[in-house]
Amino acid sequence: MEFTTSQVIEILGTIAFAISGSFSAIQRRLDPFGVLIIAFVTSIGGGTVRDLLLGDTPVKWMRDVNYCLLILVTSLLTIVLKRHRKRFTVTLFLFDSMGLGLFTILGIQKGIAFGLSPGICIALGTITGCFGGVIRDTLLNTIPLIFKKEIYATACILGGILYFTLLFFNLKADVAKVLVIGFIFALRVVVVRYKLSLPRFGY
Amino acid sequence: MEFTTSQVIEILGTIAFAISGSFSAIQRRLDPFGVLIIAFVTSIGGGTVRDLLLGDTPVKWMRDVNYCLLILVTSLLTIVLKRHRKRFTVTLFLFDSMGLGLFTILGIQKGIAFGLSPGICIALGTITGCFGGVIRDTLLNTIPLIFKKEIYATACILGGILYFTLLFFNLKADVAKVLVIGFIFALRVVVVRYKLSLPRFGY
Amino acid sequence: MEFTTSQVIEILGTIAFAISGSFSAIQRRLDPFGVLIIAFVTSIGGGTVRDLLLGDTPVKWMRDVNYCLLILVTSLLTIVLKRHRKRFTVTLFLFDSMGLGLFTILGIQKGIAFGLSPGICIALGTITGCFGGVIRDTLLNTIPLIFKKEIYATACILGGILYFTLLFFNLKADVAKVLVIGFIFALRVVVVRYKLSLPRFGY
Repeated sequence: MEFTTSQVIEILGTIAFAISGSFSAIQRRLDPFGVLIIAFVTSIGGGTVRDLLLGDTPVKWMRDVNYCLLILVTSLLTIVLKRHRKRFTVTLFLFDSMGLGLFTILGIQKGIAFGLSPGICIALGTITGCFGGVIRDTLLNTIPLIFKKEIYATACILGGILYFTLLFFNLKADVAKVLVIGFIFALRVVVVRYKLSLPRFGY
Repeated sequence: MEFTTSQVIEILGTIAFAISGSFSAIQRRLDPFGVLIIAFVTSIGGGTVRDLLLGDTPVKWMRDVNYCLLILVTSLLTIVLKRHRKRFTVTLFLFDSMGLGLFTILGIQKGIAFGLSPGICIALGTITGCFGGVIRDTLLNTIPLIFKKEIYATACILGGILYFTLLFFNLKADVAKVLVIGFIFALRVVVVRYKLSLPRFGY
Repeated sequence: MEFTTSQVIEILGTIAFAISGSFSAIQRRLDPFGVLIIAFVTSIGGGTVRDLLLGDTPVKWMRDVNYCLLILVTSLLTIVLKRHRKRFTVTLFLFDSMGLGLFTILGIQKGIAFGLSPGICIALGTITGCFGGVIRDTLLNTIPLIFKKEIYATACILGGILYFTLLFFNLKADVAKVLVIGFIFALRVVVVRYKLSLPRFGY
């Protein structure tokens, strides 16, 4: 069985968000079914909103049961393997940041496939990357990561701009994808590590 | 006018959720229009999310104005007939549980009609059953029933598994439907009555 | 370049909601990207939900990048020009009320274009008018204006009923539109100014 770059990215992103969703739910002491539901919603949320906006229905996870199985297995493994209980927040953050980079690229790519303009593609990428986490945080009734001080959606937008810039300079698409995924992940880590944030407005 | 089993189930589910929505809104002291809106959203929420995910648009309630009239009349009757004010919570719970069973079966059935695999059908049933209540609780800013200690989505999932098991043993679909609706309702009542819940994870 | 009445209404509504979204976000001290995102979501939220329910996808803002540019420019101008900091609440309220009237008419009109019955058209108008603000308030974690004491969705519903009444008496559609937009705006202002509200239910 051969996978394309996009499929590999989709599989890795699905796993990353399933892990981050499971950790969030375990941390909030949900029962096992609750953990599965949150893992599922986190993993498929961004892509579902993207496909709904594009009108590409029935949405992907309904047509390909493998994604559901992948999330189920990942979530069960996470439940079984959870050990370092004190490092939940860090683990959650790292997998969330990985998923963010991977899914942003997927969204941008799908926008390109639908013939949309670069700005709209970046918006789609941002939606694909961010919405799983937003739905997860809303359901768990915590402040969505997207509205915490550290940049979040901004990382997706900057990553999207970088992607189109790299393509503009004729970089191979697959190379550009890997670079942008790394860029978004690294940006999140640096920003959170050094507590950077954009200036804001106030009274 | 003859009704099919599915239509009867849909009508009963619509009424059950319209009542549960009205009670919630009255309990939260919304004005009459607010009560109508919450009754409406609770009744059509699950089916709307299901139809959006399937791409079956314009969504059903837009094509068939009878459902809107049904909700309007049910909601007005609920407003007029409300009496036993101290039993709001119990009444709300009973109608919510009925709606849950009825709509879960509708969602599963629609998934089968779209040729989806059993696992996805169960997910669709769970979404159809749960989302009206989730939106209702989110709008009213109360903790969604789905995340309270007692099983909720789990009842839908177990009901769905039971449905496909019954079909597998060649039970007539209409009989299986009635059994599963009763099962989901009874499960909710037993669980809440005896304060049962799934074990959960924690620190 | 000639604009139709509908296009003028759409442009004005987009601007009004972009301003109200920007003000809300600035008031909550979001960073510049956060302000842009909230302005964007407020402006396109209602129309997006409407188009999803109708199955008119890809949703409008994806097909016409001009709306995104319009929101971007409006939001940046709002950020730059904000002065009267103490009057934020009033300005926000006025632009929100304008957007409400403008978008309600757009939603009703689209319902008519899809051949839906008047009741459903009014529901669509209400959704188009209200949802941008609901999403904005939910994301910013404030109590949605729609559930505050003053009538909100009710203004859209009454405006919708007025619109069909005016059409019934053979008023020219464009005149009826302007009248209804003014009616919804004036109703909101009068209601909030004189602290009117519908009677409600309670214990």
